[in-house]
Amino acid sequence: MSIKIAIDAMGGDHGIKVTVPASLEALSKFPDLSIVLVGNQPLIEKALASHQYDESRLSVEHAEQIVEMDDLPSKALRNKRKSSMRIALNLVKEGVAQAAVSAGNTGALMAVSKFVLKTLPGIDRPAICTQMPTMKGHVHVLDLGANVGADGQSLAQFGVMGSVLANAVDNNAKPRVALLNIGEEEIKGHQRIKDANELLKNSSINYVGYVEGDEIYQGDVDVVSCDGFDGNVALKSSEGVAKMISFYLKDAFNKNLLTKLAGLVAYPVLKAFKEKVDPRRYNGASLLGLRKIVIKSHGGADAFSFYHAIAEARLEVIKNVPELIASEVKTILDSHSDDQPLEKQE
Amino acid sequence: MSIKIAIDAMGGDHGIKVTVPASLEALSKFPDLSIVLVGNQPLIEKALASHQYDESRLSVEHAEQIVEMDDLPSKALRNKRKSSMRIALNLVKEGVAQAAVSAGNTGALMAVSKFVLKTLPGIDRPAICTQMPTMKGHVHVLDLGANVGADGQSLAQFGVMGSVLANAVDNNAKPRVALLNIGEEEIKGHQRIKDANELLKNSSINYVGYVEGDEIYQGDVDVVSCDGFDGNVALKSSEGVAKMISFYLKDAFNKNLLTKLAGLVAYPVLKAFKEKVDPRRYNGASLLGLRKIVIKSHGGADAFSFYHAIAEARLEVIKNVPELIASEVKTILDSHSDDQPLEKQE
Repeated sequence: MSIKIAIDAMGGDHGIKVTVPASLEALSKFPDLSIVLVGNQPLIEKALASHQYDESRLSVEHAEQIVEMDDLPSKALRNKRKSSMRIALNLVKEGVAQAAVSAGNTGALMAVSKFVLKTLPGIDRPAICTQMPTMKGHVHVLDLGANVGADGQSLAQFGVMGSVLANAVDNNAKPRVALLNIGEEEIKGHQRIKDANELLKNSSINYVGYVEGDEIYQGDVDVVSCDGFDGNVALKSSEGVAKMISFYLKDAFNKNLLTKLAGLVAYPVLKAFKEKVDPRRYNGASLLGLRKIVIKSHGGADAFSFYHAIAEARLEVIKNVPELIASEVKTILDSHSDDQPLEKQE
Repeated sequence: MSIKIAIDAMGGDHGIKVTVPASLEALSKFPDLSIVLVGNQPLIEKALASHQYDESRLSVEHAEQIVEMDDLPSKALRNKRKSSMRIALNLVKEGVAQAAVSAGNTGALMAVSKFVLKTLPGIDRPAICTQMPTMKGHVHVLDLGANVGADGQSLAQFGVMGSVLANAVDNNAKPRVALLNIGEEEIKGHQRIKDANELLKNSSINYVGYVEGDEIYQGDVDVVSCDGFDGNVALKSSEGVAKMISFYLKDAFNKNLLTKLAGLVAYPVLKAFKEKVDPRRYNGASLLGLRKIVIKSHGGADAFSFYHAIAEARLEVIKNVPELIASEVKTILDSHSDDQPLEKQE
């Protein structure tokens, strides 16, 4: 099987400086992979000039525009038709590539992807899904900001899409799916969460009920479905705490000569620890619910991190994630809601 | 000034084992403090028997019921009128004590407090406010779960209440107040957040705009106002990540003999670091918007942690927080919305 991925080479805070080395790394790692770098051709060729690579597996597609990190989605959609982001997605639409990867701004990427690639039949709203580390492995969390005010049906669909993804990319036969809530009692939380709870209880996926924010990291569930606002708050708060802890840890070891010496002794341990929770290994959020595969890299990603986003795209191509989602969402949510019509909750 | 605080001695996961030693510690630390321990009198007296303390400053009030951690708020309200929680709040209502502290279940404590003590005039909904550590000090975050689906007016009131609290307990003349959102562009987020944004922009508090979850911990704002669902998700997710990081850090130092030795060398540094981010120092969430002072301790609090909740109650009594809130909320939000009526947002 040969896989071709279109890379928005200009997206993100660092553009070519990150996307080009990450692409070369991915090509050397995956012999089945080809890449199209989309962006400013002269600049990309200059960045490639000093490197050795298999030219038959790497091509460049010129794009004269760039979607800026603060461009509104509507502007990106209307005024940036010649952007590297748009052309990368066009290549996927035309079947030239099977997936696109971009570190460009999330709102624009979601809007342009929806417009160019369309959502799958039966999917109300696509969602952004990322992996986060847990005490026992990792968890898939969605939505992370594409949908504010998702209804119960959408939240249930997120649960099913996450289950399909975890099944495909983790070879997990029965992913445990949960809904994010603020208490375990069924009386708490929003009506939409109660609606999704009913839908998922009556579905054939391995739905395990509600989790609270802290349980995301315990490793006892594989998928957490939530509204985009809530998911974004959970993700960003978690990033903030992790940064603060790392800040105070460094600070403690930098206090004086003695603590610095202790830091030298502890360095290999601290390094091993850091690798364990390194968020860069989890870079590459999936835009689930589209007809094709789009992976969003963190805007500030470095090459190591962007490489992981490319690897995620390749894996989803191999596993054919969009087609799995299309068939599962239909089967799981429809069949059951036919037999057992959802009671109106008061 | 003499301050009397009523302690729900039976609340929380550990009850008397925690509340009694914490109370004794607070009495020895604060000469202006008196305490009424409310709960099972024989058990409390037994716990006190082995200790030396000033009997004129510590009394026991018997209560024959306990609000359990999983009691529904409605049940606590109707069927637990002789509970330690209820009687502690009654003592505050009657003016015997100026504040109550409980580690009992949050929903019940809020419901019973609202019923017994009433909300301040002009306050739509009381909120739960806690301090969290930041890279530069700490931040007050509210609401943390009392209000799900708070409207713009409530979110604005939370901002004002947080500002009053930060001003009073931190001696911060111009606390920087922010609204939790998922992006800095004004187009993102819920309508209620945009409404609150308008109200706060037109108020006289030091409103600085939106922050995202990660910015809670950066130390550039002093107060973050948010809906109870969002605040709870932020708080719990943060707790979860912190636990996970601590788990992997311990794990890394426990790998083998060599890493254990490194851990011994690094121990004083790790200890200093841990104290810096110790959540126990931030225990004691304020139920703001009530006519009297109620402090909610974490259910799993140890004595050190519960002592901090008592200290917070004492400080709020000294600063007279409820009266400050009553006057400020009225002045700040009313005066301005009269001059500049809020435009309907589309």
